[in-house]
Amino acid sequence: MTTQDRIGAARLRAKVMQAEDAAALIPSGSTIGLSGFTGSGYPKAVPTALARRIKAAHDAGDPFRIRAWTGASTGPELDGALAEADGIEFRLPYNSDPIARAKINSGAMDYFDMHLSQVAPMAWQGFLGPLDIAVIEVTGIRSDGTLVPSSSVGNNKTWLDRADKVILEVNRWQNPAIEGMHDIYYGTALPPNRVPIPLVHPGDRIGDTGFRCDPDRIVAIVETDAPDRNLPFSAPDDTARAIAGHLLEFLGHEVARGRLPPNLLPIQSGVGNIANAVLTGLIDAPFEQLTAYTEVIQDGMLDLIDSGKLRLASATAFSLSPEAAARVNRDMAQWRDKMILRPQEISNHPELIRRLGCIAMNGLLEADIYGNVNSTHIMGSRIQNGIGGSGDFARNGYISIFMTPSTAKGGKISAIVPQVSHVDHIPQDVQVIVTEQGLADLRGLSPKQRARRIIDTCAHPDFRPALADYFDRACRGSYGLHAPSLLNEALSWHQRFIETGSMRP
Amino acid sequence: MTTQDRIGAARLRAKVMQAEDAAALIPSGSTIGLSGFTGSGYPKAVPTALARRIKAAHDAGDPFRIRAWTGASTGPELDGALAEADGIEFRLPYNSDPIARAKINSGAMDYFDMHLSQVAPMAWQGFLGPLDIAVIEVTGIRSDGTLVPSSSVGNNKTWLDRADKVILEVNRWQNPAIEGMHDIYYGTALPPNRVPIPLVHPGDRIGDTGFRCDPDRIVAIVETDAPDRNLPFSAPDDTARAIAGHLLEFLGHEVARGRLPPNLLPIQSGVGNIANAVLTGLIDAPFEQLTAYTEVIQDGMLDLIDSGKLRLASATAFSLSPEAAARVNRDMAQWRDKMILRPQEISNHPELIRRLGCIAMNGLLEADIYGNVNSTHIMGSRIQNGIGGSGDFARNGYISIFMTPSTAKGGKISAIVPQVSHVDHIPQDVQVIVTEQGLADLRGLSPKQRARRIIDTCAHPDFRPALADYFDRACRGSYGLHAPSLLNEALSWHQRFIETGSMRP
Ligand SMILES: CC(C)(COP(=O)(O)OP(=O)(O)OC[C@H]1O[C@@H](n2cnc3c(N)ncnc32)[C@H](O)[C@@H]1OP(=O)(O)O)[C@@H](O)C(=O)NCCC(=O)NCCS
Ligand SMILES: CC(C)(COP(=O)(O)OP(=O)(O)OC[C@H]1O[C@@H](n2cnc3c(N)ncnc32)[C@H](O)[C@@H]1OP(=O)(O)O)[C@@H](O)C(=O)NCCC(=O)NCCS
Repeated sequence: MTTQDRIGAARLRAKVMQAEDAAALIPSGSTIGLSGFTGSGYPKAVPTALARRIKAAHDAGDPFRIRAWTGASTGPELDGALAEADGIEFRLPYNSDPIARAKINSGAMDYFDMHLSQVAPMAWQGFLGPLDIAVIEVTGIRSDGTLVPSSSVGNNKTWLDRADKVILEVNRWQNPAIEGMHDIYYGTALPPNRVPIPLVHPGDRIGDTGFRCDPDRIVAIVETDAPDRNLPFSAPDDTARAIAGHLLEFLGHEVARGRLPPNLLPIQSGVGNIANAVLTGLIDAPFEQLTAYTEVIQDGMLDLIDSGKLRLASATAFSLSPEAAARVNRDMAQWRDKMILRPQEISNHPELIRRLGCIAMNGLLEADIYGNVNSTHIMGSRIQNGIGGSGDFARNGYISIFMTPSTAKGGKISAIVPQVSHVDHIPQDVQVIVTEQGLADLRGLSPKQRARRIIDTCAHPDFRPALADYFDRACRGSYGLHAPSLLNEALSWHQRFIETGSMRP
Repeated sequence: MTTQDRIGAARLRAKVMQAEDAAALIPSGSTIGLSGFTGSGYPKAVPTALARRIKAAHDAGDPFRIRAWTGASTGPELDGALAEADGIEFRLPYNSDPIARAKINSGAMDYFDMHLSQVAPMAWQGFLGPLDIAVIEVTGIRSDGTLVPSSSVGNNKTWLDRADKVILEVNRWQNPAIEGMHDIYYGTALPPNRVPIPLVHPGDRIGDTGFRCDPDRIVAIVETDAPDRNLPFSAPDDTARAIAGHLLEFLGHEVARGRLPPNLLPIQSGVGNIANAVLTGLIDAPFEQLTAYTEVIQDGMLDLIDSGKLRLASATAFSLSPEAAARVNRDMAQWRDKMILRPQEISNHPELIRRLGCIAMNGLLEADIYGNVNSTHIMGSRIQNGIGGSGDFARNGYISIFMTPSTAKGGKISAIVPQVSHVDHIPQDVQVIVTEQGLADLRGLSPKQRARRIIDTCAHPDFRPALADYFDRACRGSYGLHAPSLLNEALSWHQRFIETGSMRP
């Protein structure tokens, strides 16, 4: 495929250059808005070239660093390379790169962990400061200058609208048949001019198939030919299958009670292996004509579509294993009618999640006996990834479900603790907690009722007696008896883990 | 005024009876949906009669109790009387009655503290169980059988729609000129049938002026003639004035920077004296043509309307001092064009709060150095009121501001602590914290940046060195350095207060 095919706007062809030359246009101290959401649709050449430039600058004694805004996590060529080079001073809104994570947790990098739905509005509101440069992967530039998006949409529309300068990466690896899959809504505004978002079904198309972009702000175009780099999924293990089993039984029960329609409501499925196991489990479950209104399209959704069970998936990005990514890319035309990729402001919008009534299913690190959920901070201080879109979906979904194995680190850590060391989701936003031990339906329960149910149903038997003992003693010795707590002990399990490597006494 | 005037539907007049007879229709174990939101619009005769009946039953050895759902808090004749009689087994979604609070905190009453916007949808979803009886104060019954609402709307529409039986209190004390002030939206639905809510300005009217109610389900009508019983406001003290001053300066600064329009955006103002001081301060501030889209209309808003500064206030209830309530009731016709009362599902709807871009201003009990906010649980276990609508507004507002004096209990408690003992609002939902010491603008800051700003700006000088010392040591000795924390010490200030009556070392 030639430059002509991918860059239809003839006058823009003059801006094609090498990644090094494009990276040279980025000054130290810049705030850069990059494409990318999980390992898809991120720029693959310019960040690496920028990382090399930063390393050289550091070697020469120049403290070159940039501020990076993205959609969510990205690939190793972006976060990994720039973090490795100590090139990121400040990062938002989500990260799962191990090198960047280590820098954040060693105190070398500042990280601002945001609700994914709020990034674009807050950028528009001016709350995040000015945006100097956008670096965006696209799959093509049409002759009218509009841009064909890639395998993730994320915040690209906002970065393109707001950045002073734009650098495009045109990625030949992505199948051009992706054109038409996207729905880029151009109806957002700042208040007092906001209006209802006219989406009432996950499959509604309310926008353009491409991005608008002022050609005068495009300062460089770099051609690439590299695959997205997502992580492989591991096959569901017994734990994941048990969790999925409890959850599917619960959904069936809700349908039987008339609290959910027979084809359920639009599914939102979080990141990770357990979420994927639930999707896989849905293939054999008695629900037909499903839809998904979610953040990312995972491997399990492809199989669910193939099985005829899932009619349509709306998301902001693909998040596929390398094999599944190749599969989608090969038969793109076939998938295009079953999938819609939207800006994350829309995929995660509270207005739409509440209207559609999404069934929110997300992972957690730890939950406490009252149903507070920690999704982000290990031992209260070490960030794992970030809250991502879990807050958007957990608070606004029809029902909010959190899933986790009952232990971590080979049984040394209980995922159910007296008090979480950090809170991402308050009990009001957590209706159901599921572990391989069982499913706790917490709807309409007071704190003490929740505690009994979570301890009895979700905790691992090895930790259950200690939790029950803590709760019993708290019910006698607490300052208040609404949500009994022993402050001296509440975080002692975590402290013990730090000191001894295990929460076991 | 006669029964004829207030009860236009002739065939319903036969159902008029004494409160005792109506209370006798409520069996033990019933779930009752009561009107009432703060001290306004709650039923005044039937709950008191029910409390007497419950006391008599208890004296006779019968463990009579009911489950009570309301809009939010109510008056002493409802929560106070029923709690005093040990008549409430379970209560949702908000309480501020001191007797009920004491019962909850002694473990005698179960309490489920909810986001106020979610009560009606979750009741429809069937998540809260069946509703047996609605007991609703209205100001009149029209000849077509529709009901004229009273001084609060709350969840009344939902209770009337869903309860098996309905008991009405027709309160003659409320000025009949209130008719026309309400906007009762009948467009809600369960998913997949939800549609956009067609409200784009705080003043839009999208519904009926009264409630629809199947006359066959009305089992009793009780006539009353009693005022609402709100609490008096204390005049703003120096602390409240200092907080209001910082906040108004900040708003002016945001307008100057172009981040807010000159007439601001719709104001949401939480409960309490500080919120009222801010409203009072707005009278002399340089903002014109203000609007409010909020939960309750407080004294300060009347003055703001009188001053010509506030064009319109939309809320779900009045929350006025006795004098202000009498003032509104006297000149109701004059106020009716400037105020709209809506169901709390609409006043607090995430879709609308986000669309309108409300400026959310709420109180807190304590905040920690990372910007987590506790609005509800004193020392982590003793409930004060409940989260109320603060989560609806804090997460969805254009900007979320929390206000507090820097100390409580005569200086023995620091409102800024190393780690909050309970979390209602996560840092993602807290953009600004204000105390009389100063205002911390936390937008776009990483956890360590937030900590430095909160300690330096908001903490009381008596506690500042200890906070700075904690944070410094945490930055050296924490497990992770993203949000440094010393788990052994994180809750030790609270424990010290419990043991010694003071957080001071
Ligand atoms: C919470 C979350 C990390 C779980 O994901 P997962 O893939 O199931 O996580 P894992 O079980 O592999 O755990 C990740 C790491 O945390 C560790 N861990 C898990 N639970 C732990 C706990 N309670 N205490 C300490 N460490 C824990 C694991 O051991 C693992 O560590 P390792 O990488 O050193 O092996 C993930 O769901 C997440 O990031 N959520 C927040 C964002 C989100 O929900 N996005 C979707 C919204 S649309
Ligand atoms: C947080 C909240 C209680 C503050 O209200 P307020 O009227 O300013 O509260 P006060 O300063 O009078 O404090 C109430 C009590 O808590 C105590 N208190 C306050 N801060 C405290 C702290 N950090 N630790 C312990 N006790 C504290 C006060 O001493 C007082 O106790 P008292 O009744 O024994 O005198 C109130 O805003 C609230 O209930 N918020 C949640 C609901 C909400 O925000 N609704 C509006 C949403 S639309």
